[in-house]
Amino acid sequence: MNPLKQKIGIIGGGQLGKMMILEAKKMDFQITILDPTEHCPAHSIADEHIVADFDDRQALEQLAQKTDVLTYEFEHIGVDILKDLEAEGYSIYPTPKSLDIIQNKYNQKELLKKNALPVPEYIKVEEKKDIYTAVEQFGYPIMLKSCTGGYDGKGNSLIESESDIKDSFAELGAGKNLLMAEKFVPFTKEISVIVCRGREGESITYPIGENNHEESVLIETKVPADISTAVEETALEYGHQISDVFSAVGIFCIEMFITEDERVLINEIAPRPHNSGHYSIEGCITSQFENHIRAIAGLPLGNTDLVQAAVMRNILGTAPQGEAQVLGSEEVLSVDNVRLHVYGKKIARPGRKMGHLTATDKDLKRAAAKAKQAREAIEIVGEKQ
Amino acid sequence: MNPLKQKIGIIGGGQLGKMMILEAKKMDFQITILDPTEHCPAHSIADEHIVADFDDRQALEQLAQKTDVLTYEFEHIGVDILKDLEAEGYSIYPTPKSLDIIQNKYNQKELLKKNALPVPEYIKVEEKKDIYTAVEQFGYPIMLKSCTGGYDGKGNSLIESESDIKDSFAELGAGKNLLMAEKFVPFTKEISVIVCRGREGESITYPIGENNHEESVLIETKVPADISTAVEETALEYGHQISDVFSAVGIFCIEMFITEDERVLINEIAPRPHNSGHYSIEGCITSQFENHIRAIAGLPLGNTDLVQAAVMRNILGTAPQGEAQVLGSEEVLSVDNVRLHVYGKKIARPGRKMGHLTATDKDLKRAAAKAKQAREAIEIVGEKQ
Repeated sequence: MNPLKQKIGIIGGGQLGKMMILEAKKMDFQITILDPTEHCPAHSIADEHIVADFDDRQALEQLAQKTDVLTYEFEHIGVDILKDLEAEGYSIYPTPKSLDIIQNKYNQKELLKKNALPVPEYIKVEEKKDIYTAVEQFGYPIMLKSCTGGYDGKGNSLIESESDIKDSFAELGAGKNLLMAEKFVPFTKEISVIVCRGREGESITYPIGENNHEESVLIETKVPADISTAVEETALEYGHQISDVFSAVGIFCIEMFITEDERVLINEIAPRPHNSGHYSIEGCITSQFENHIRAIAGLPLGNTDLVQAAVMRNILGTAPQGEAQVLGSEEVLSVDNVRLHVYGKKIARPGRKMGHLTATDKDLKRAAAKAKQAREAIEIVGEKQ
Repeated sequence: MNPLKQKIGIIGGGQLGKMMILEAKKMDFQITILDPTEHCPAHSIADEHIVADFDDRQALEQLAQKTDVLTYEFEHIGVDILKDLEAEGYSIYPTPKSLDIIQNKYNQKELLKKNALPVPEYIKVEEKKDIYTAVEQFGYPIMLKSCTGGYDGKGNSLIESESDIKDSFAELGAGKNLLMAEKFVPFTKEISVIVCRGREGESITYPIGENNHEESVLIETKVPADISTAVEETALEYGHQISDVFSAVGIFCIEMFITEDERVLINEIAPRPHNSGHYSIEGCITSQFENHIRAIAGLPLGNTDLVQAAVMRNILGTAPQGEAQVLGSEEVLSVDNVRLHVYGKKIARPGRKMGHLTATDKDLKRAAAKAKQAREAIEIVGEKQ
């Protein structure tokens, strides 16, 4: 069978699904999405859209029946349903088994530790007294984390002194959810290693991106990262190892900390194309989205070389909440070398990821300056109701 | 009004329309296409598809009503309908006026000549005896051309000696169609200048591509072209001038001949993104398709710098005619640095443009070798019925 004739199903029709489709369509793949929002970003370019909740077993079954290979654009899916579908013979990548481990940050870290991959020290928190144990072992500050369901810093709470313990514990469900406490790593940089692993186990990595966050939300990724060759080699090697440990198929993003003494510690893993890899659309020969599609379809992976330095900036929604309005599109496009991505979410909310832009240039500093200038020219705001 | 909220209508849903949409969707434009073929290449990614013939006045009117700006992916449209729509107040780019002149190669050449832009010598042919006049003036060989409707060498007939005259004249309609006779230019290279002109008259050019044809159909474009700086500067200057002369809005492609004595002669103009500009998707900061959309939407034009050397090869259908089958997709994608475009035409016919591929590399020779290797690995063939 011609591999390009495989029908692809994507659970989720947000911006990641949309960007997967924009690449997949170049090769004429047919795509069905499942998303509860009728006018989600991927809607207008998908061949078919099953409007259903992500935990709707019947709808997921329907998606699997209509397609030859399933993938997903976010990790908070009922993995039991996916396991059942896989048992019925459907192809799902990344595999439900690897997703299952990744969904629980404690189990994720346990597997990494077991494989001698360096992570910040951590312990499981079942009751409040476990937090005190963590403090004894690690000292302040410590990071209290929900083991499941967190993203963009949600589900994390920093404990800087004893007086924070009660509130942090309450904030994260007071023991109702699985929690873990982690030694706070005073890192100097946070980087992303994007790795793509094929069905046959071959893996390739992308040029390392250096991330800047504001209030735990990614605002900028700069590539190449300003790191030593030793750190780069270590981080890329961890990327390959992790993709093997999790038997990844498709794109995995691994966020890592670099400490003052140049150690590389693994922070978190996302089993999908990631915001910090958006720069690859303009910056690399083959984008993370195209390689994700190639990997899950069993096709050879594409070259990931950086073509020019690239700086990506997120465009988060600004207040008030309401129907999304793009302000400043002419100004942003008048900045040289900038490409604009507007996701097409109908509602803008403060902090919601509404789009991003990428500036490319032979010189990283110029790219960063252009990205900053462009970012300041645009706003996606909700129209007052 | 937010310029990104403009709805765009495209007459034609072939590969050019498809590639326009893939770029337009990044910025969240809404697109309606008009094409008689239900499952045309652009169908699955358009917001709406009016299935109608290109000369269906009512359907074109409907397309204009549904959208804010109209464009087209091919030049053989009834320009009278477009003129009427423009008179009714609809925005159409490139303008029907410029399309009208371009549709007739004789008028096209007349306007170029009037503006001191160099073209091969030519005369109008109304009767067979005019061909003899051309022979007297230019000597053999001469190129007999239909003034309207030709593409990919169709509508052209080479007259090498007196014995060809009768057949050539008969082949092109024996005077039923408008004809012209052109002095045959013994060119050493054929190049393409892609120019984009905005609504305000600003124009930018792309790096010049060097074209290779087989049986009058483009098979390869190499960028940068192997030409002298003097030729390059002259050709680019002609590009800007031509876009002004025709009051272009959007992408125009100008095919030019370079003679042995380094003269640059203008061959033909296409008022739209062109096959010889496909390399810009991977090769340039902003592709011809994105800049076409930016131009017709009144947005600032994007940087056209070449990021890496790029070589595009067309994938023409091979016999037999039938339902299109892609053979060798794994092999083609295993060639480093190659990106594959499959248009999704349902029926493959020998010589039909079914897809293309582009190899990029720091080194042009390596890019050319990779494109050649990849092209040899893939075939799009009709399945026997």
